[in-house]
Amino acid sequence: MPLQRMITFTTDFGVTEHYVGVMKGVIYSIHPTAQIADITNGVQSFDLLDGALAISQAYSYFPKNTVHMVIVDPGVGGSRRPILASMGDHLFVAPDNGVLSLVYEHEERVSVRHITAEHYFHQPVSSTFHGRDIFSPVAAHLSKGVEPDRFGDEIEDFVRFLTPKPKASGDRSWKAVVLKKDKFGNLMTNITPNDIPELFALPTPAFKITVGKMEVTKLLSSYVHGAPSEIFAVLGSAGFLEISANRTSAARTAGADKGSEVSVVLG
Amino acid sequence: MPLQRMITFTTDFGVTEHYVGVMKGVIYSIHPTAQIADITNGVQSFDLLDGALAISQAYSYFPKNTVHMVIVDPGVGGSRRPILASMGDHLFVAPDNGVLSLVYEHEERVSVRHITAEHYFHQPVSSTFHGRDIFSPVAAHLSKGVEPDRFGDEIEDFVRFLTPKPKASGDRSWKAVVLKKDKFGNLMTNITPNDIPELFALPTPAFKITVGKMEVTKLLSSYVHGAPSEIFAVLGSAGFLEISANRTSAARTAGADKGSEVSVVLG
Amino acid sequence: MPLQRMITFTTDFGVTEHYVGVMKGVIYSIHPTAQIADITNGVQSFDLLDGALAISQAYSYFPKNTVHMVIVDPGVGGSRRPILASMGDHLFVAPDNGVLSLVYEHEERVSVRHITAEHYFHQPVSSTFHGRDIFSPVAAHLSKGVEPDRFGDEIEDFVRFLTPKPKASGDRSWKAVVLKKDKFGNLMTNITPNDIPELFALPTPAFKITVGKMEVTKLLSSYVHGAPSEIFAVLGSAGFLEISANRTSAARTAGADKGSEVSVVLG
Repeated sequence: MPLQRMITFTTDFGVTEHYVGVMKGVIYSIHPTAQIADITNGVQSFDLLDGALAISQAYSYFPKNTVHMVIVDPGVGGSRRPILASMGDHLFVAPDNGVLSLVYEHEERVSVRHITAEHYFHQPVSSTFHGRDIFSPVAAHLSKGVEPDRFGDEIEDFVRFLTPKPKASGDRSWKAVVLKKDKFGNLMTNITPNDIPELFALPTPAFKITVGKMEVTKLLSSYVHGAPSEIFAVLGSAGFLEISANRTSAARTAGADKGSEVSVVLG
Repeated sequence: MPLQRMITFTTDFGVTEHYVGVMKGVIYSIHPTAQIADITNGVQSFDLLDGALAISQAYSYFPKNTVHMVIVDPGVGGSRRPILASMGDHLFVAPDNGVLSLVYEHEERVSVRHITAEHYFHQPVSSTFHGRDIFSPVAAHLSKGVEPDRFGDEIEDFVRFLTPKPKASGDRSWKAVVLKKDKFGNLMTNITPNDIPELFALPTPAFKITVGKMEVTKLLSSYVHGAPSEIFAVLGSAGFLEISANRTSAARTAGADKGSEVSVVLG
Repeated sequence: MPLQRMITFTTDFGVTEHYVGVMKGVIYSIHPTAQIADITNGVQSFDLLDGALAISQAYSYFPKNTVHMVIVDPGVGGSRRPILASMGDHLFVAPDNGVLSLVYEHEERVSVRHITAEHYFHQPVSSTFHGRDIFSPVAAHLSKGVEPDRFGDEIEDFVRFLTPKPKASGDRSWKAVVLKKDKFGNLMTNITPNDIPELFALPTPAFKITVGKMEVTKLLSSYVHGAPSEIFAVLGSAGFLEISANRTSAARTAGADKGSEVSVVLG
């Protein structure tokens, strides 16, 4: 009996149109008992970093052999290739535009194939919706147990971008950036304990983080420990330092958003 | 063994309340192993055309014998009938208000029944939530293999509306309209290659399309070919001409939205 | 063969990040054939009443033995306990912050356990995402048939809040409140037929309800009976009096929202 693999969706197609439904229809038509789970279809439109963050923070929680569709695809219909990546017991189907970059960073065994086996595609292939015509049918066949090497040859020159890392701006100071504002108004920065270990040392050193119009001087273990209307730092569940508030939006309070500069000064 | 049919949801109930969850609960209580997929629950509130577009663009991608629930139902509790339509190997459960109009346009074999078999309903039937009390239990029983003729008699006078078609406004000019703005800011017009074949001839003729405050003079094969901040036309994956932009919202750039006039002049 | 229980999600994690996807991944990793349905992940951020309303209106429609995850958890990482409640043939996994209060009101047999069996948790347990590390694995094991008493001891001092009830402000007058604005712009008040039976008597008495800047003097059986731009009252499908409009937003027309005062005068 062939292997069954579940399928996840990480896309910017949203939940107000038919796009995601169409893709699921294509999958069920090929594999009527497919098991599909949405990671999120609410990636910000056209935003590769937002998609890269979502999939990188979620994929490892799914069972081995899951097929993750990651479709943030502003280059659809152009020269960018469709790819199939095998990494760490998971499979990924995506456009080759760097949206898997943060997964590449986490995994040591990376095999990427250029998907060229057109007999698996939904014909005719449109020039604007490869989620429907290429990625969904490929994911469906993978979910039925077809092996990755059937879809195309390995490539080495796949696209990857580097996420910006905090930069030292002085002896004990750094410039960082807000990678994402989440639904609660938490501001996820690009600061991890690897980047500024001093900041996460115990006991916590004196520090000042400036973001938007606010200065943050506390590092708390969770949101609930913040005083009303206070802004503070938390090491978030994804491993990044977050600027947060207790039961309100830190982003609104600080007047900051994705892309805002974060300055860190120790001592 | 009776036929199992999967169920899809196309509704305006949104994702911020309990409505969709309640409907799924009703279905699972009747059919514990039902297979349910959302097409979208984000149809614009009360908007029959928006619902009609979503289901018409999605249903044919699902397996034969799928039961599509299409619940945009501003007339709930009034005299509008609940209907069950059989078309092209698919079943549709919906209020009889025209929300299936664009499916009727695509299909030749159309059989519509007035759902009257109250013993299938969730009792007592409320006057405000037939999605819960009528449509979900009917869909659940259909999904278990109950045949359509068990739910009521065929009718001929079901409601259908005609989508507006582009109108000639001169020898080589037309007036059209924006049917929908999607999540990416694409403006889907009501223009198809059938309506203005000259526009889609090869080589592409000189043309000028005016929408909002912008003039469009290029027809591209996909979004990626557009220059930054350029507005252009694309034949979209749903078969309609779209006014689009590359990695940004054409709707915002053009200052146009659903209902905006689109003027086309050739030559 | 052990009992299989389905799982529902009622959370404020939203649909634009990876949070809900991560939780489903954790569940599928423990129980690969789990059956999961979303009630809503669009509860207003940090809003216990909004979550309490959603689960209380939905749970009873699901099959017996369903495991309902109700994760609105602003106190994560603090002293609030994770609990497992058994009520009326349903199971609930939630933080002990009152988010189940409206379910407690509906059910007579209530057994609440403090979840302490850490060997079921996802290790290491973070201080900011117990949805991932505690509630999802507990729900997954429950869905596989593990019995509630395996997760911790019963407690009596679980947290419950009382929803505000309408108060008499005179012989034939009451002060009430808007509990929720739904996606359609309906204003759900805290008035039920139990609270003001006179208002729901037949024939309907003369009355005046003031909400925002509007006066309401009609009680209709459904939205469709309202005149264009009229604001009226409807006994909604959840059992609460709603202030509504026909095909438009009553909230916008009245200039009212969650928390707005509602005044009722009879005669």
